[in-house]
Amino acid sequence: MNSLHNLTCFDIFEKNALYNGASPAIHWNGQDITYADLFAQTTKLSHGLKSLNLPAQSRIAVLCKNHPVFFHLFGAASALNFVLVLINRRLSREEIFHVVEDTMPAVIICDSEMAGEARAAATSFSYIKHCYVVDEDKEFSSLYDFPPLENPRPIGPKDPYIIIHTAAVQGKPRGAVLSQENILFSNQQIIQTYGLDRTKAYLNILPLFHIMGINMSLGMIQAGGRNILQEKFDPKKTLALIQEQKITIFGSFPPILSNLMDAMQEGKFDLSSFEIAAGLETPETVKKWESCTRSKFWTMYGQTETSGLITFAEYFKKPGSAGAVSALANIKIVDEFDTFLPTGTTGEIVVQGPLVFQGYWNAEELNAITFREGWHHTGDLGMMDSEGFLFFKGRKAERELIKPGGENVFPAEVEKAILKHDAVKEVCVFGVPDPKFGEGIKAVCSLNHGKNLTKEDLIKFCGSLIAGYKKPRYVEFIKELPKTENGTIDRQKIKVEYA
Amino acid sequence: MNSLHNLTCFDIFEKNALYNGASPAIHWNGQDITYADLFAQTTKLSHGLKSLNLPAQSRIAVLCKNHPVFFHLFGAASALNFVLVLINRRLSREEIFHVVEDTMPAVIICDSEMAGEARAAATSFSYIKHCYVVDEDKEFSSLYDFPPLENPRPIGPKDPYIIIHTAAVQGKPRGAVLSQENILFSNQQIIQTYGLDRTKAYLNILPLFHIMGINMSLGMIQAGGRNILQEKFDPKKTLALIQEQKITIFGSFPPILSNLMDAMQEGKFDLSSFEIAAGLETPETVKKWESCTRSKFWTMYGQTETSGLITFAEYFKKPGSAGAVSALANIKIVDEFDTFLPTGTTGEIVVQGPLVFQGYWNAEELNAITFREGWHHTGDLGMMDSEGFLFFKGRKAERELIKPGGENVFPAEVEKAILKHDAVKEVCVFGVPDPKFGEGIKAVCSLNHGKNLTKEDLIKFCGSLIAGYKKPRYVEFIKELPKTENGTIDRQKIKVEYA
Repeated sequence: MNSLHNLTCFDIFEKNALYNGASPAIHWNGQDITYADLFAQTTKLSHGLKSLNLPAQSRIAVLCKNHPVFFHLFGAASALNFVLVLINRRLSREEIFHVVEDTMPAVIICDSEMAGEARAAATSFSYIKHCYVVDEDKEFSSLYDFPPLENPRPIGPKDPYIIIHTAAVQGKPRGAVLSQENILFSNQQIIQTYGLDRTKAYLNILPLFHIMGINMSLGMIQAGGRNILQEKFDPKKTLALIQEQKITIFGSFPPILSNLMDAMQEGKFDLSSFEIAAGLETPETVKKWESCTRSKFWTMYGQTETSGLITFAEYFKKPGSAGAVSALANIKIVDEFDTFLPTGTTGEIVVQGPLVFQGYWNAEELNAITFREGWHHTGDLGMMDSEGFLFFKGRKAERELIKPGGENVFPAEVEKAILKHDAVKEVCVFGVPDPKFGEGIKAVCSLNHGKNLTKEDLIKFCGSLIAGYKKPRYVEFIKELPKTENGTIDRQKIKVEYA
Repeated sequence: MNSLHNLTCFDIFEKNALYNGASPAIHWNGQDITYADLFAQTTKLSHGLKSLNLPAQSRIAVLCKNHPVFFHLFGAASALNFVLVLINRRLSREEIFHVVEDTMPAVIICDSEMAGEARAAATSFSYIKHCYVVDEDKEFSSLYDFPPLENPRPIGPKDPYIIIHTAAVQGKPRGAVLSQENILFSNQQIIQTYGLDRTKAYLNILPLFHIMGINMSLGMIQAGGRNILQEKFDPKKTLALIQEQKITIFGSFPPILSNLMDAMQEGKFDLSSFEIAAGLETPETVKKWESCTRSKFWTMYGQTETSGLITFAEYFKKPGSAGAVSALANIKIVDEFDTFLPTGTTGEIVVQGPLVFQGYWNAEELNAITFREGWHHTGDLGMMDSEGFLFFKGRKAERELIKPGGENVFPAEVEKAILKHDAVKEVCVFGVPDPKFGEGIKAVCSLNHGKNLTKEDLIKFCGSLIAGYKKPRYVEFIKELPKTENGTIDRQKIKVEYA
């Protein structure tokens, strides 16, 4: 493989070590890690992982909260041509096992809280050769005892590098495959849009197993600035960190800003360094946040499948829009026959360009459909206006998506869990406005004859099967669900009547 | 061909037409051309060229001074998957024919001044099916009478898009092949570095057949700003244009700045809009220019083979350097065995990343050597310092290059021409400091026994064989050229003694 035209994450780390080595790269646990140290740790771990004698493109599953090990692994996977499978820590055991079975990793790396799940997976699946608990297993820390790796493996620009499970097809999440090129160009766009450079500092509130967390943290590294890690969002500690570390930017989904503003009442914090919060929010909260911090909130549109963000704008530049299409993406709006629609018309958002992902893992047929006509079909509805601003208009009916607090929840996943309860006859799950999380999950159910069930019991039952953030927050029991002429559940009617 | 991951120049034009259509794209001949008009002209010409029924990857040779037709062709070649062969107008007929024979274009498009050369080529080479003189031939203007092309051909990210002849190998220029991806990522880097956006205006002093002219003009289009075309550099008219069109940026090689400053003495010009001149200059001239314009001069390093610039810095940020390595390029310094050298050590500059060209046209063996070990070997010597700044240290001996006024002249080309004179026995050509052009060409010759030759006659003789800018400015006759132990001409010694 010729890497003539390729740059990797490893190259970025190395460049920083060479030319920016004494500057702090990561702040974690009260300590600064310089770019020189970050590279040293990365190349040592790379050598350690190489000693496991795994072939190129082996999968490494990661089940960790935000921790420097993510960065070591981003670099090491680039050095060894491994594929990182980043698993959402909030998934249930069944969901985690689905990701593991789908990707068959040779190694699983977890934090101590997730050790039970990881070890259970390692016991159940013989292809998992190594299971490491970070900060606990000596076998893992001994991987850092190797001398720095000197000759990284060549990597092609489109080789799988990161897999993140996201879009639900038939109720099961699918792994979106991202290449080095996807990640680096997306980061580059973040750098350009938000003006990242060596003087800036990014607070990692968003988890590093999500694409936006990756973009912003690796973008900051690509720009030579600082990453401040916070294991878990805690409003007061976050405010203190912003002040202490002179944070300039973070990513934000409800209820982050509201929680921060509540905490501001309880103390005085100097937030004058802060410049940009980027994510999704309500206009009221943004207005309040901007006025009490003198920073800007940036809105956006993107998916894991587009390597993150592809539209950007300051929130009030064009109220209601998701921002203007970025330089590295080509966006069109199409009808159901894939005919391009003019500006001002709503249809499916399709995307071309170097940010389009490499396809879903193990899903050739699905990829052929998703990429038909040479365009990535997002499953999202939108409209472009005459100035290149995108207006998001929801998910296509068959690919409905609920976003509580920025997470992706597919109604089909929740419905599948609810239907496992033997009292439930029918169910329809959809998103409703939620004051705290922006969007909340609502389930409308009918019960089997003679059965009883409380809302609380149903929610608890779901919690045993799917991630906590996927549990319905609102449940309503009705006698029978409305049907369409074909006898299927009339989702549109239910949404109108019970939202 | 799947264009899922590709963006083309045509896409950029279309995006601007859709979302920035009423804004001026090009100012030429006292008139503004909007982005909507630019796209309309481009799609019409695309359709016209399509009617010629040429297969994908056909070559279109261009022999024009700066003119909107360049932009139409950049777009049309992207729409039809053609390859533009951009020929330096200053080449001699023999040199032009070399480029034509190397690339076998099906079409040649020229301005009226170059019509003689173009028609001679069309007569000599039967593969040239169409020869058009812009603004003169009705056959050419009738190509714009077609309705807009609706379905552009798919293009792969690495398909040849532009060929520019540059590096001399065995005395003959070779065509550097650039892809859509090369051009667009290089433009993107220009946008980011120089902060181009819709409010900025670029004055095209540099010719559009040179990579830096292309980068800056297409970069400005990618950013949605204005391109002001000037057919020919004329100091007073240039100053008037800067004032009238509120120019913010141009590219500059000696003697542009000196000539502009001379012209400033002869009138009063408001240059307050002007922000950036980018190119090569002496410290004295830069200091003078910056103080009398309150703008910044940016230094750089790059080649056609790296799709243009890969290091950038404000001139006085690190005096003597060529700037800091950019995000999209990976630069290493190697010794003659291709071993990486540490910072502070001089060796050959090698490059990886999406800006590396696709290779020389028709030159597989040369490409294998140039790209050995997966790195592009620039033939330039340099040193990286500990902060990532590149210091340019000249050409490698076997790939010596002289740069009078920013053009590339290879001593071997000049020597070959001089040796055609039957009075000349031996010659050594090299660069010397030149007060006007930054660098000048000097020839040191010995004559055959009993022959006489004046400097003036030799220079005139060269002018009949090679481009005017390649003629030696300085000639010195000596009895015999110094030799090395092997009996070859001792170039180093001659340079020291006769520079």
